[in-house]
Amino acid sequence: MPPNGEEKFIAQFLAPLSKGFPGAFDLADDCAELEPLVDHSLILKTDPIVERVHFFCDDAPEDLGWKALAVNVSDLVAKGARPVAYLMALTLPAKPEPQWMERFAAGLREAQDAFGCVLIGGDTDVRAGPLSIAITIIGETRSGRMVRRAGAQPGDIVFVSGELGGAALGLQLRLDGEYGRDWSLSESDRQMALARYLRPDPKIGLRTALQAYARSAMDISDGLIKDLHRMCRLTQTGARIEFDALPMASGVRAAMAEHQATALPLITAGDDYEVLATVASDHALDFEAAALSGGVTVTRIGRVVAEDGVSLMAPDGGSIHVPTSGYDHFDHK
Amino acid sequence: MPPNGEEKFIAQFLAPLSKGFPGAFDLADDCAELEPLVDHSLILKTDPIVERVHFFCDDAPEDLGWKALAVNVSDLVAKGARPVAYLMALTLPAKPEPQWMERFAAGLREAQDAFGCVLIGGDTDVRAGPLSIAITIIGETRSGRMVRRAGAQPGDIVFVSGELGGAALGLQLRLDGEYGRDWSLSESDRQMALARYLRPDPKIGLRTALQAYARSAMDISDGLIKDLHRMCRLTQTGARIEFDALPMASGVRAAMAEHQATALPLITAGDDYEVLATVASDHALDFEAAALSGGVTVTRIGRVVAEDGVSLMAPDGGSIHVPTSGYDHFDHK
Repeated sequence: MPPNGEEKFIAQFLAPLSKGFPGAFDLADDCAELEPLVDHSLILKTDPIVERVHFFCDDAPEDLGWKALAVNVSDLVAKGARPVAYLMALTLPAKPEPQWMERFAAGLREAQDAFGCVLIGGDTDVRAGPLSIAITIIGETRSGRMVRRAGAQPGDIVFVSGELGGAALGLQLRLDGEYGRDWSLSESDRQMALARYLRPDPKIGLRTALQAYARSAMDISDGLIKDLHRMCRLTQTGARIEFDALPMASGVRAAMAEHQATALPLITAGDDYEVLATVASDHALDFEAAALSGGVTVTRIGRVVAEDGVSLMAPDGGSIHVPTSGYDHFDHK
Repeated sequence: MPPNGEEKFIAQFLAPLSKGFPGAFDLADDCAELEPLVDHSLILKTDPIVERVHFFCDDAPEDLGWKALAVNVSDLVAKGARPVAYLMALTLPAKPEPQWMERFAAGLREAQDAFGCVLIGGDTDVRAGPLSIAITIIGETRSGRMVRRAGAQPGDIVFVSGELGGAALGLQLRLDGEYGRDWSLSESDRQMALARYLRPDPKIGLRTALQAYARSAMDISDGLIKDLHRMCRLTQTGARIEFDALPMASGVRAAMAEHQATALPLITAGDDYEVLATVASDHALDFEAAALSGGVTVTRIGRVVAEDGVSLMAPDGGSIHVPTSGYDHFDHK
């Protein structure tokens, strides 16, 4: 009895992604074995991506491989953890074409090389229905040093990494190539926005700065305002965010100048995968310096306050109504 | 902004399953934190169950909860590992009814209490398509002591735990209530077979015996012959199995007596979740004793041989043709 289709598929496309990790056993055992470092905690997360929720079926397979891993690495990075290994449950609508699978694996390879982790196990099922890629990622920090979501204190400075709104603009462009055609949206802005949507870029260089200085942190996956509210609620705090301080992707900045009402939802929508962190004000300069030395720009966007609620303040001191509260898997139609 | 639908759902139905595990943070953080025991390895596996592949949409929600965890625990047990914690990615066709969710969580609760592990993280998505429950389980063994799939040596005794064929018979009865009605199939045989299919029973009590004596082990999820072949292939060995020695579920034994050709595929089909192990012949008695003291019956079903291939031997010394090679997710239509 020769190896069957499923085993050949794993050996050909997936086992090469496990090379160099002895406890992955070339993906030919039932489980993986991981030897934790002494005095370290393991940090774990599972965040699947599903066709028509997180991606389109005609997205490039390389992009899907990248995104499936990147959204999980994004969570780890926000906790100050170093990615180590991942398991992947792949649920496919049909036996995949070898060419599709090769390109998908190439995207995973690029991502795992960029983020420093290795495939150590998984499972593959075929059934009618949308493609789903469920990765569980394992990272590590020194013992008990995970940066918590609960920790924001009144007076803390609120920081965000990178730029906001690019991924949401990319999604709109993905849905409608003509989107924003009456704005001054350059071709390079369009391309950058699409790239932000298709290839989220977790801020792996921010890990050390977060470990050293963040009082609380999380990644923004469901939108700035919504996720900040979730963070503050855990310590019965709130936040005042200065609209003018928000770092916007350049296409979004252009849109905002001309069509604020249309563009505002972009910066509060999901998919940015930037890090949101609060830092005690006397550590703010150190945090900025540590972030920069890791190659990541962070921006002060406001302060944690004692009052419940997150408000977005206009330059004139009034508050700006936020027209969307981000993505909710249960409220979404 | 009050907690939204997704957050309330998690707090109500899932967070109670994480109680008692500090690093689960009541499922209100982005990641879980796990402190490994000193001198221990972590053993990891992900094995999703998917509607219409592994279960039916009208199976009782309690059974789905149980099964989703049990199939993962089954893999760990076969490696000699102790279950510790699990993450769960739940992908639902619609926002679930509270009553369904309550019953599903009750099934998970029963299973995690039986197997000694706790929910520490997860994710929930709603999208059109079949229900999918992807659990990643984390267990532990003493450092480097995972029982490998690769290890069978010629002369080893092949053991199997429990009984074979019950789950496959249960599946047939689930598909067709009249199945096997011309056999002497008692009502209690029918009920037991259905229970084997709906509620796999990983042999958690076999862990210590496997750690002490097994040279190789795996759980049978895709069928005895197919999985034994996979195991032997890794050490360039084969196996001779004595048909008369196979422990059969009582309904299957009845069927076999009357309709061998129809019943034979049942014992080589998937879903049994029993443990298959090979043990050096001078440890066989010790292994049996250790298994029994863990409350698990194991049966000698044959020997590992130097020649490639798995043969099933009839009492008259001839070989029995096995009409199915088990389940293949890629070959299945």
